[in-house]
Amino acid sequence: MKKLINTPDDLLRDALQGVEAAHGDRFRVSYDPAYVVRADAPVQGKVGLVSGGGSGHEPMHGGFVGPGMLDAACPGEVFTSPTPDQMQAATQAVDGGAGVLHIVKNYTGDVMNFDMAADLTRADGVEVEAVVTNDDVAVQDSLYTAGRRGVGITVVLEKIAGGAAEDRRSLQDVAELARRVNANGRSMGMALTPCITPASGNPSFELTEDEVEIGIGIHGEPGRFREKIGPASQIAERLMTPIIEDLPFSSGDRVLAFVNGMGGTPLIELYIMYNEVAKIASAHGLTIERNLIGNYITSLEMAGCSITLLKLDDEMVRYWDAPVNTPGLRWGV
Amino acid sequence: MKKLINTPDDLLRDALQGVEAAHGDRFRVSYDPAYVVRADAPVQGKVGLVSGGGSGHEPMHGGFVGPGMLDAACPGEVFTSPTPDQMQAATQAVDGGAGVLHIVKNYTGDVMNFDMAADLTRADGVEVEAVVTNDDVAVQDSLYTAGRRGVGITVVLEKIAGGAAEDRRSLQDVAELARRVNANGRSMGMALTPCITPASGNPSFELTEDEVEIGIGIHGEPGRFREKIGPASQIAERLMTPIIEDLPFSSGDRVLAFVNGMGGTPLIELYIMYNEVAKIASAHGLTIERNLIGNYITSLEMAGCSITLLKLDDEMVRYWDAPVNTPGLRWGV
Repeated sequence: MKKLINTPDDLLRDALQGVEAAHGDRFRVSYDPAYVVRADAPVQGKVGLVSGGGSGHEPMHGGFVGPGMLDAACPGEVFTSPTPDQMQAATQAVDGGAGVLHIVKNYTGDVMNFDMAADLTRADGVEVEAVVTNDDVAVQDSLYTAGRRGVGITVVLEKIAGGAAEDRRSLQDVAELARRVNANGRSMGMALTPCITPASGNPSFELTEDEVEIGIGIHGEPGRFREKIGPASQIAERLMTPIIEDLPFSSGDRVLAFVNGMGGTPLIELYIMYNEVAKIASAHGLTIERNLIGNYITSLEMAGCSITLLKLDDEMVRYWDAPVNTPGLRWGV
Repeated sequence: MKKLINTPDDLLRDALQGVEAAHGDRFRVSYDPAYVVRADAPVQGKVGLVSGGGSGHEPMHGGFVGPGMLDAACPGEVFTSPTPDQMQAATQAVDGGAGVLHIVKNYTGDVMNFDMAADLTRADGVEVEAVVTNDDVAVQDSLYTAGRRGVGITVVLEKIAGGAAEDRRSLQDVAELARRVNANGRSMGMALTPCITPASGNPSFELTEDEVEIGIGIHGEPGRFREKIGPASQIAERLMTPIIEDLPFSSGDRVLAFVNGMGGTPLIELYIMYNEVAKIASAHGLTIERNLIGNYITSLEMAGCSITLLKLDDEMVRYWDAPVNTPGLRWGV
């Protein structure tokens, strides 16, 4: 295992110190319990947005903390859920009197711990709602998930809900919008290579020199099938067809198309994939009104990509376009 | 070789089509000769900035085209210089009457071809200046370079010169500032893994399971030495010491610190590296006033990183902070 780390045990602390050194002007970093929070939190009268999950998916979630997106993020150890005390502390830190929304990817540990944190924080008199993302069409039930896994839509949802919260919409409004984004979003991913968790030092799975896995999860959870690698056009088809059929997306739909890198795939390949995605979308009569291309929800150094489509409505577009100022996504400011 | 491409021959065209599909509202894409240019070019009365080089380093340079940074970029095939006709066409496309600055990384092919393009364009009556970046302290002379290689400072220079051009500074001013940035910038990189060029299908070099190469170039050119991988703190020291000693950077200097990923390294590792860089900078009495952390000048899927330090002055800070609106760097708009 070759990684730019000191030791596996120090990884999370060192990374948080790096975040604090780089972005101390915009973040406060708490180490015990570990969370990252907007420097100006709590923002009075604004719904607070808290997300979190295992580390190894950066920039998600810590890189999305800032005006227009998350108020706080709780990082667990690599591929390990954060604990309820982290979530409780983060929730209290962002409570500006308008309630707090938890954005939770559908993994058993995350869901259970956010649930517990919500109960604890409600007992302190904070109004808490939760939205659970489950946009991955690849498989039903998985290594760490009952039902569908939460993947790429989480990034898009955090941006759109962040815009609505910044607009001082109510907790019920923001939660309803977030659930609508999840309900109208579908994703699927694939891997060219596995990733190696620092604690184990071993690849999460094995692929031969000419194999890819279609439908992979962001922790290397098994996908639908393996096959010999084909051209980008074929790989795009393998991901887009199940996505389009699942919602289903229909001719005339306006969509946001998100081509995400798993961490080890060069940007030029993501643009090649986007080109194929755009062709397939066009063939189905879908209009891509917004796009996002890059490494936003990753699996350490895994090579591969995922595709997320979101069926847009005017409110979603408005809050997608709204200003955002985070290390991972920034525009309008 | 496993890559998200159709064929090696189609790679550049497919990627450009992806860029056009994604960013057609802000770019015009020319395929023959190949270049990407701001949709609103030429901007009357503004110095035009043109860069370019082999593909495989994305988002550099195409991802830096837009208001506040480059006016146009010319992509060659992977790790291959673009041709003079590409550069000539791009130069003409961005000439708004105030002259054009070529930003050229110090590789023999790039320098020769930009030189030829400058001569051709001057013959058409366009005033052209060039700045050649050569910030890599690792080695003198290399596989494709006489002198020092141009690496990370190029990204920073394109931003700062872009800010000055947007401010309607003269060609001489912008060129002088760009040369000052190069003269005050130093970089060094390292690799954990090689990359594979699509045309060859083979790794550019070999490293054993526990080896790193210190001083690597962005095309896998040999560095200073190989050694057994150590902790992030040691790797940062290996890069920072030669950088600091070379300029030299001195106690009291204000710097911009840029921790760049080579393409296959996860963001969390770059933040761990940044933490070590910040500690070393502090121990040397350097004040990091600005930072940049991410994959900006890459080597396909190579794992590794580079560090760039720039000794700042007020003018550089002002133009670094100025608004920029490109796919790769965006703030203030």
